[in-house]
Amino acid sequence: MAQSNSTRVDVLAVEEPLELRVGGSPLVVTMRTPGNDVDLAAGFLVSEGIVRRRDQFVGAIACGGPGTGGGQNTYNVLDVTLAADAELPSREHARSFSMTSACGVCGKASIDAVSTVSSFDVAADDVEVSADDLSRLPDALRAEQTVFAKTGGLHAAALFDADSGELLVLREDVGRHNAVDKVVGWALRENLLPLRRTVLAVSGRASFALVQKAVMAGIPMLAAVSAPSSLAVELARDSGVTLVGFLRGRTMNVYTHPRRVANPIAVSEGAVS
Amino acid sequence: MAQSNSTRVDVLAVEEPLELRVGGSPLVVTMRTPGNDVDLAAGFLVSEGIVRRRDQFVGAIACGGPGTGGGQNTYNVLDVTLAADAELPSREHARSFSMTSACGVCGKASIDAVSTVSSFDVAADDVEVSADDLSRLPDALRAEQTVFAKTGGLHAAALFDADSGELLVLREDVGRHNAVDKVVGWALRENLLPLRRTVLAVSGRASFALVQKAVMAGIPMLAAVSAPSSLAVELARDSGVTLVGFLRGRTMNVYTHPRRVANPIAVSEGAVS
Repeated sequence: MAQSNSTRVDVLAVEEPLELRVGGSPLVVTMRTPGNDVDLAAGFLVSEGIVRRRDQFVGAIACGGPGTGGGQNTYNVLDVTLAADAELPSREHARSFSMTSACGVCGKASIDAVSTVSSFDVAADDVEVSADDLSRLPDALRAEQTVFAKTGGLHAAALFDADSGELLVLREDVGRHNAVDKVVGWALRENLLPLRRTVLAVSGRASFALVQKAVMAGIPMLAAVSAPSSLAVELARDSGVTLVGFLRGRTMNVYTHPRRVANPIAVSEGAVS
Repeated sequence: MAQSNSTRVDVLAVEEPLELRVGGSPLVVTMRTPGNDVDLAAGFLVSEGIVRRRDQFVGAIACGGPGTGGGQNTYNVLDVTLAADAELPSREHARSFSMTSACGVCGKASIDAVSTVSSFDVAADDVEVSADDLSRLPDALRAEQTVFAKTGGLHAAALFDADSGELLVLREDVGRHNAVDKVVGWALRENLLPLRRTVLAVSGRASFALVQKAVMAGIPMLAAVSAPSSLAVELARDSGVTLVGFLRGRTMNVYTHPRRVANPIAVSEGAVS
């Protein structure tokens, strides 16, 4: 078979560190795709249970911060000002907390600890979405994605109004946790929390952390194009989130709380491999 | 179009928290697929620059630890014993450190700080691999993957001998960082560090953190089935790692240090989108 050997310029998904500070104190560093950084910070703080109302997120300033040696932007430090009643983790908790961006577990030893953190009751959300409407989400997601098609390197997260099917917001990032945080942060700043009667659609897999972020934002339904993990299914079941996986074309698996999906194609009982 | 609505049992990729302790003190929590946990711990410690020789990793005991409420195993706490000369981060650094599992940046503000950490000089590795041999890696990867085909939910990382083309080890995990740590930890325990003249192949994308892990283990070549990020390319360039992306069938992009790839199909200059 003939080979062609060429030199060309490629388009890459941008990954840069962001240091998040609160009141001048470093809180966490995450690797993200620059853009919507204030939403990312706001969503992260919602996911961690530090902020739950718009007025608690007073503002954010992008500091110059250290560069990354690549001649790119140096806006890699963001200093957030919070209201006095926003509960920052104590120093002892802070250490556990900083583990979070890894795994979304906040250093908690048990899955049982999560449901107590959310201020919102997603289990009570009685929204219902037809399987037809759900099956259209992946196409809607792709249609709105800008960089992904070029690089194959970005995850997308999008929020849909479950009643109208309208796309409310879509965000992309090299990290799927970040893409969801950007969506949730946008919602906080638009004063839309809790996100009742919405569907969060993600381009990749559904992990424990993504379900947790949905719970913290009051989102009753999470639909993933790819597979969920065992712990994602477990948390969704325990917290009242409807978890849809393998949402592809006209097929999907509904892992938990299928009452919210009208005419589902398949309902899975999340057995563990 | 007709819909079939069925209830069935699905196979899920297992995700569970693992708390890593050193000498009884909690160090980090990561979400991982159980299995090869000691390798995961060893590889994590190599990636963080704490351990670089086999004799520094004295042993590990799986504690019972708290369960996850799902009736599954409770071996979610692993206590590692290190030699006296293994350098644990100080308490102040510990906090930064614990951010790491998120993003692989160790809380460092700058990419420049990374290359000083590795004990191994990957840039000096003069191994050369033919594009033909590289093109066979994804098939070799898939052939060895066990759970992925069933769940679509696991990342794989595999280490190949660059001279013989032999697969040395393959590991799977819900987290791609973990899959690589399991490979590196295996190598540490087999006393194979630095991993000269090897190729690390990964099933997904190549992020900054994965390049960093390759550097810390002395691996001169990283080949990813999917896209690299901008910072992955930057670090690979600066640290002397040959970074191959979009390794699919007989096409691939070589982003950095193409001298190690004989007859490459395409050489990309990693322009940032």
